[in-house]
Amino acid sequence: MKNEIIYVIKIGGNIIDDEERLTVFLHSFAQIKHKKILIHGGGKLATRMAEDLQIPQQMVEGRRITDEATLRIVTMVYAGYINKNIVAKLQASGNNAIGICGVDGNLIKAHKRTNHNVDFGFVGDIDSVNIDVLDEIIQKNIAVVIAPITHDGHGQLLNTNADTIAQEIAKAVSKKYRVQLIYSFEKSGVLVDINDENSRIPILTPNLYEKYRKEEKIFAGMIPKLDNAFTAINAGVQSVVIGKADKLDDLISGKSGTTLKNE
Amino acid sequence: MKNEIIYVIKIGGNIIDDEERLTVFLHSFAQIKHKKILIHGGGKLATRMAEDLQIPQQMVEGRRITDEATLRIVTMVYAGYINKNIVAKLQASGNNAIGICGVDGNLIKAHKRTNHNVDFGFVGDIDSVNIDVLDEIIQKNIAVVIAPITHDGHGQLLNTNADTIAQEIAKAVSKKYRVQLIYSFEKSGVLVDINDENSRIPILTPNLYEKYRKEEKIFAGMIPKLDNAFTAINAGVQSVVIGKADKLDDLISGKSGTTLKNE
Repeated sequence: MKNEIIYVIKIGGNIIDDEERLTVFLHSFAQIKHKKILIHGGGKLATRMAEDLQIPQQMVEGRRITDEATLRIVTMVYAGYINKNIVAKLQASGNNAIGICGVDGNLIKAHKRTNHNVDFGFVGDIDSVNIDVLDEIIQKNIAVVIAPITHDGHGQLLNTNADTIAQEIAKAVSKKYRVQLIYSFEKSGVLVDINDENSRIPILTPNLYEKYRKEEKIFAGMIPKLDNAFTAINAGVQSVVIGKADKLDDLISGKSGTTLKNE
Repeated sequence: MKNEIIYVIKIGGNIIDDEERLTVFLHSFAQIKHKKILIHGGGKLATRMAEDLQIPQQMVEGRRITDEATLRIVTMVYAGYINKNIVAKLQASGNNAIGICGVDGNLIKAHKRTNHNVDFGFVGDIDSVNIDVLDEIIQKNIAVVIAPITHDGHGQLLNTNADTIAQEIAKAVSKKYRVQLIYSFEKSGVLVDINDENSRIPILTPNLYEKYRKEEKIFAGMIPKLDNAFTAINAGVQSVVIGKADKLDDLISGKSGTTLKNE
């Protein structure tokens, strides 16, 4: 019987880029009394760093090509600068936390993406998640902050999508805990009209999702996120909430955002 | 009764800068069957990164002034790039490991250095070491890899000397374990003649140290390291070995390096 709640929360890049909003978000995160995991993306710092170092960034289909120099930058920025600054802010809020990435404790094994016409470079697709060490830490009520870097088990670090990491971590911990997965980003939820923040869908079931998709009322950019989220629910995650990072309390209480449910 | 051995090993920057030697060193480290902690310094990558980003580096009394831009770089390079690459190599050797820094699990609290005529910037002097989380991990026979970044408890990361971190961690774990502290660097040990690698002192006691110092036979650069090491021994560390990183096996077995003992 899985009784204990755990929050698995992903914060998007736009919050990370905004010191003030990040501080507010982390203050809310620190207040959560349940077990919790925070997965962060990268924000614009990696891009800025690449520019400053004059390393040209290639984008294909909206994704960054991770060549060797770019892998070095994202490892530094994500697993170093952003990860440690988030943990420092949580410690300052009196919330003990530890920052790791997919290589630590062998948390996330991945392989270099090859099944594609485009060579994305050092981008990792996840093979397995091992929560042994993560769970040891969580059991001590210490928050775990995860940077989106994985490894292949042969010494190679890999850049991996943070949304996917959140989903895979949520699935893995759902074997033991009742998982509330929260994707926090810049919009107030899944919107029927992308330009109207008041058109938020409060509850989305698979049937409703199907209907809105057929009517083309769901913004194309949201579809991979939603497909991901429903996959997580089907794999044992209790619920998924998608909404504005600035209102983490309301996302948790169900007052804002879009809640995905199986029925 | 402290029966269980733990190795606390510091690797110097010159090994980190040399991919091949680092791999050899980590392979030896991975073979150690006892509990173990690895503390790494920074190497030249941070300096190179600062040059590439055209951030001028100020050195005073052989120490880097850590301004805000430099703190960002060392956090990225030490806690991100170097730390995660070391862990990836250990995982590849089949040695489960986790990479953290002083902010993680509230491991090392420090304060910004102020008691000095020179403003060293964001440099931290250690106030306290809390091994609760570290020990949870160690008890699972997972190696812990520590980057030399600490925090002040108010959200500020600080750059801290890796030799000092090794000493403080060794002292803290000595309350529970029999600690073998190893400082591995580029020389084969403490030398009577700095230019003669064969002039290594195999065993150094406080009396012998006093004698060599009076005779000015100990290289000035070694004195803070040795003072540190004897402080650690007086505080409960079992033994300290100083020697060449390329011969980690021999340092552990006592075949090479200088062993510091209380009598």
